[in-house]
Parts: sequence; C-alpha cells; structure tokens
Amino acid sequence: MEKKLTGSLFVAEHPREIANIRYATGFSAPDLFIFLQGPKRKVLLVPALEVGRAQREATGCRVLSVADLGLPRERRSDVAEWIHALLKREKLKAVTVAGSFPIGLAEKLKQKKVPLAIANGPAYPERELKSPAEVKKIAAVQKAAAKAMTAAMAVIKMATVDKEGYLRSGDRCLESADLLLLIDKVLLEYGCSAKGTIAACGRQSADPHARGEGPLQAGNPIVIDIFPQHLEHGYYGDLTRTVVKGKPSPALRRMHKAVASAQRAALAKVRANVPLRLIHQTVLDTLTAHGFKTNLTGDHPEGFVHGTGHGLGLEIHEAPSIGLRPGRLRAGHVVTIEPGLYYPDIGGVRIEDTILVTKSGWQYLYPCPRSFML
Amino acid sequence: MEKKLTGSLFVAEHPREIANIRYATGFSAPDLFIFLQGPKRKVLLVPALEVGRAQREATGCRVLSVADLGLPRERRSDVAEWIHALLKREKLKAVTVAGSFPIGLAEKLKQKKVPLAIANGPAYPERELKSPAEVKKIAAVQKAAAKAMTAAMAVIKMATVDKEGYLRSGDRCLESADLLLLIDKVLLEYGCSAKGTIAACGRQSADPHARGEGPLQAGNPIVIDIFPQHLEHGYYGDLTRTVVKGKPSPALRRMHKAVASAQRAALAKVRANVPLRLIHQTVLDTLTAHGFKTNLTGDHPEGFVHGTGHGLGLEIHEAPSIGLRPGRLRAGHVVTIEPGLYYPDIGGVRIEDTILVTKSGWQYLYPCPRSFML
Repeated sequence: MEKKLTGSLFVAEHPREIANIRYATGFSAPDLFIFLQGPKRKVLLVPALEVGRAQREATGCRVLSVADLGLPRERRSDVAEWIHALLKREKLKAVTVAGSFPIGLAEKLKQKKVPLAIANGPAYPERELKSPAEVKKIAAVQKAAAKAMTAAMAVIKMATVDKEGYLRSGDRCLESADLLLLIDKVLLEYGCSAKGTIAACGRQSADPHARGEGPLQAGNPIVIDIFPQHLEHGYYGDLTRTVVKGKPSPALRRMHKAVASAQRAALAKVRANVPLRLIHQTVLDTLTAHGFKTNLTGDHPEGFVHGTGHGLGLEIHEAPSIGLRPGRLRAGHVVTIEPGLYYPDIGGVRIEDTILVTKSGWQYLYPCPRSFML
Repeated sequence: MEKKLTGSLFVAEHPREIANIRYATGFSAPDLFIFLQGPKRKVLLVPALEVGRAQREATGCRVLSVADLGLPRERRSDVAEWIHALLKREKLKAVTVAGSFPIGLAEKLKQKKVPLAIANGPAYPERELKSPAEVKKIAAVQKAAAKAMTAAMAVIKMATVDKEGYLRSGDRCLESADLLLLIDKVLLEYGCSAKGTIAACGRQSADPHARGEGPLQAGNPIVIDIFPQHLEHGYYGDLTRTVVKGKPSPALRRMHKAVASAQRAALAKVRANVPLRLIHQTVLDTLTAHGFKTNLTGDHPEGFVHGTGHGLGLEIHEAPSIGLRPGRLRAGHVVTIEPGLYYPDIGGVRIEDTILVTKSGWQYLYPCPRSFML
C-alpha cells in the first residue's frame, strides 16, 4: 500500500506563520507568500519579484513564482488556487496547517477537496529552545539595544534642568522624540530597527505601552523600552530601563527599589526546570513585601499589571510566557525578566533584561547598566 | 420567538484583524486582544495594562480586562476561555468571524459549542472607500513621505562624486544607511515611522524589495521607497522615486522614460468605474511599446514583475489590488500607481504616487517632485 504523501503548509500573513517560515527557510517578505514543507523537499511560492532574493536567502528550497504554476489568467489571483496547483505539482494528497492558519482560506481549500489537518501545538516546537547560532543573533540585537539605551542615558545625564523643571540639551528643550530619534540612529548603526520604542516620562509612563511625547521633566520617571529587530536575520532583542533626572520623590524611589528587588529575586530563581509560575509569583511576592498592591480588575488597574516575561526570537513575544500559564523554564530558553509597577499619580517603573536560561542558572545576552538617577 | 443574538468577533493577531479593529474602534495594541461587535454594544477585551488607554482611545466601547471575566486561575490564560466567558457575559449565542480568523482558535471554540459563522468577504467592506477624514490622515502621512523624499534627494544633489564614482557628503562616503537614517528622522518630525524603507542603488535595486546597503554610486539608479505609518492614528502613505547622481547610461535613461510614461498613461485613465485590469494593462502596454519585455516565470523573472498598485489605509496593502484581479476603481479609493522595471544588469526603476480616485479623475494626496537626474 502506498503511503499518503503529506506536508506542512504555511501562508505568510499571520506574524506567527511568517516567523515559522523564516525559521524553516531563512526567507521572509512583506507580501503574502506560501511555504510547503513536503516529505521530500521544501518549496517557497513567492511573487515573481521575490524569486531572486528567495533563491539567495532560502538555501535548500525550491523557489517558484505564481506564474510557474501555469494557472489560467482568471484563476491566477486566488491564493486557494495557488495552493491547490502547488499541492498537485508536488503530488501531495493532504497537508497539515498551524493553528494560526486563516479559517477562510481553509474553507476554500476544503471546497477544492484538499484535506487539511490542524496541528495540535506549534509548527516548530524546537523554536522555543535557541541554538548557539540563534543566541548569538539575539545577543547582537541586545547589544544594539544596550548601546541605544546608554546613548539615551548619556543625553539625559548631560541635560540641564531649567527653572520650570524641564530638561534642556544645549539651547533646546529635551523631548521624548529626541530620545526616540537618537535610539533609532544607534540601532541603525547596528543593523537593527525598532517599531514602538518607548520613551515616556511622568504620568505617561503609568501606561506601560504609551510611547511618550512632549518635554521630559526632572524628578519624574522616564521609562525607556527598546525592542529592536535585526534588519537582515529578523531576530529581536528587548531591554527596558527607568531613569530619573534629578531627585526622585520618596514614592518613586521606593517603587524603583521594589522593582529592582523583584527582578533580582526572580533572576535568583531562574534555571532550567523551575516552574514559570514560580518566577512570576516571586515577582508578585517581592513587590507585595515592599508594600505595593496590584489591582487588575475594573476601570483603573494599577500595580504590577503585566506578566513577568516572555520568550523572544523571530517574534518579539513567543513561548514561553512567564506569568499564569503552566510550564517550566528549560535550558536554551531566551526570555525577558521585566517586573514593573504603574500608578497613575506617580508613573511607571519597569526594569527588563533579556537572558539565556541555562541548566544551572542564566546569563545576560548583553549587559546594560541599571542606572536610575542620572 | 426570540431572535438569536449574534455579533462579530475579532482577535487582534493577524494584520487584517488588527486593522479592522482599529477601523471600528480607533484602538490598537501590540499584544493580543479581542473585539466583539455585538448587536447592542461594542466590547474590547484587553490586557489589564491596556485598560486605561483603551478607554481613552476607543470611545463608545465597553472596555474589559481578562481579570473582569471572573475566570478561575487555571483557565485565565486560554484565549478560547476568554471568548467563551465574554460571549456568555454579553448573552450572545453565536458570532461571525472574518476569513483571517485563526483556525486553531475556531476549533477550540467549536469544542466549547460556540457557533461560528465565517464572513463571506471583508469584515468592513466600507474600509475600501476612504472618508474625507481618512483621506486627510493619509495625506498627512503622504506629506511626511514627500518631505523625507525631498530631504533624501537634496542630500544626493549636494553630494560630490569621487574618482571611483562613489558619492561623498563632506568628507564621508554617502551610503544607503545615511539616506535611511535621514528619512527616519524627517518622518519622526511628522509623527510617522517606517519599517522597510528602501534606498537601494545599482544592481541592488533590480530586486524591488532589497532595502539597500553600502556606498551609493554615480550613474546608477537609486530607488527610494518610503511607506510610513502614522504613530498615532495608524494610517499609511506610500511614495517611490528613482534618482541618479550624474549621468545615467542610455539604457537607464530609457527605462526611466518608459516607467514615467507608463505612470502618466495609467494616471490618464484613472477615474471611478474604470476596470482595475485596464489600468494594469495600460502600464504593461506602455512599457512594451517602449521596448521593455517582462518575463514572470522561471528562476530569473525580469521586467515589470509586480502589480500596478494597491489600496492603502490602515494596512499598507489593502483592497483594491490593481493587477490581474477583477473589479473597478471607485470614487474614494486611495491607491498607489507604481509601475517599475527591473533588470539584473542595470538595476530597477520605480515611480510611485498615492492618489485619491474621484468620479471624474484623481488627485494627489500630497505631491512630490519627479526629479530623476540630481
């Protein structure tokens, strides 16, 4: 009896699918493309304009463009037709898709009698554990983040404070946008770019995802969160520091001390085989012991309002998630440890490092000073 | 008989779902969140840390965090559980999802007996036609792109050429990275940022998606493609110019003339009710009439290897697609018209503008000079 030939099918639209294809092939593109991992070979089906780059970057893949499928013109713009023709060409009778596969396309394929199985779990579970080559790539991005962070810190340190308490650099008012631009500039020098960098001051920083805008003020927390992606290989880094120019209020000083203690306590527990929830609980307990309360419900959540950390690699957020979910740390995990506290009347404090989990502990991907008062 | 209450459900992971939620609510976030458009009200289910921002930005939505759902701890990290609890809370018996909804989550919801219907077509078809307020937002981003483009052109114009034919700015060699950084800086001044900006010179530019790296050379095409997104409202702009420092080769000069003619010919046909394919065919015919051949198949596609244009708005590529697909232009479409030619031994030429289609023709969102020789 002939064994039914099957493969794994990916459509590059959902960020997870894009990351999976990049993991399997090294190739990525801004427009929709298809990856088929067959029993005998890997095939990339890309727009004609991407054929050359795909051939250079996706070594070991057969690269096709839609025009190669020989579809009649009226069927050449339908993704389901591409997939149907591709599977026929590759003589595959069925394919497995990931949970992130779009349901509408799955329905169209069903109508064309293409049997689809949905994978139970991630397409490449091994993505969670980073190889030495991957660790090196993430470390290079983390270095870019650290260099950008120290440049931003230097500008804040060199700034003067005017009578109204605003930071000045030379004869100009220093604003969030100045830090963001400087950070982008340094990242570009290291072959990285970042979308969503945060440089938020004062009450703005009480919202962990506010990017920050307007003038920077002395005595207030400035949360700087940099999560760049490498322009070539696509791996991410992630780094946050909270600094203050001049004298922090006693409340802010206590917040920073609590968050720094929570990060130290969590890091002290990190090593392979430790439950993820234990790391999160350690942060919660340390913050509570320092007198900081968390309220997650209602219209005004405050305190420690997010998880303790997340894996990162070809996605900025990937497995494992260090929070309420079950599971354990494993050697080869690259994760952030990023406790934070947020109160609307004071602002936010977050300290985040990206580390490699090892059998007996952990190591920095690239260190960055934990300066607070500049 | 009681009518079964249904709603539309969105999970913010796929770029199209994220854009749809932003369209419906004004809110977006980097982490997974849920939007439910019910018969009576709209609900956003967001991480606790996003509650405040969602309340400010998504006016008219009820904002909840996962903690508000009252799930027991062991079920609090499962998105299917969130949705199940949310629908129960809102007393909805069934929901419609878009084609981009992830199939794995759909399967989990089926197991929980949540009836899902798959929408036949886009969730918000009206997104294709831009309101005056949306046109204004896209025009502001297009202005940022035009300002960044003219800044890059000015630097190339002011550059000198050394004995080896490399561009120099002051005492430094001028590289792709210098243009990319300058472009980012100008965009930031206009509240925008861009991922994937292209400043590719010479043979690099023969690949339409190569970002460009290394020194810029006189006599070679420099393709500059800027597609920024506004940092606040999230709308995109899109603009490409191809310039040359010094004297272009006769072949490059002919390529640029052909592409400019093709864009003019296509624009001359743009108005409401014209078939999309006619615009694309006009480009193809003009390029062919200028003696430029296109080959889309095989390992070395060359010529006019992409579509003529695409709609843009909250996504950089959205409906309509101006290429092989059926359909007609409509008043209120905001589209790019971007013919190009790519030959490995010469490089690429692309000229792209973003325009608003009107009943009787079209108008620029924001004009930018079509300079070629600098």
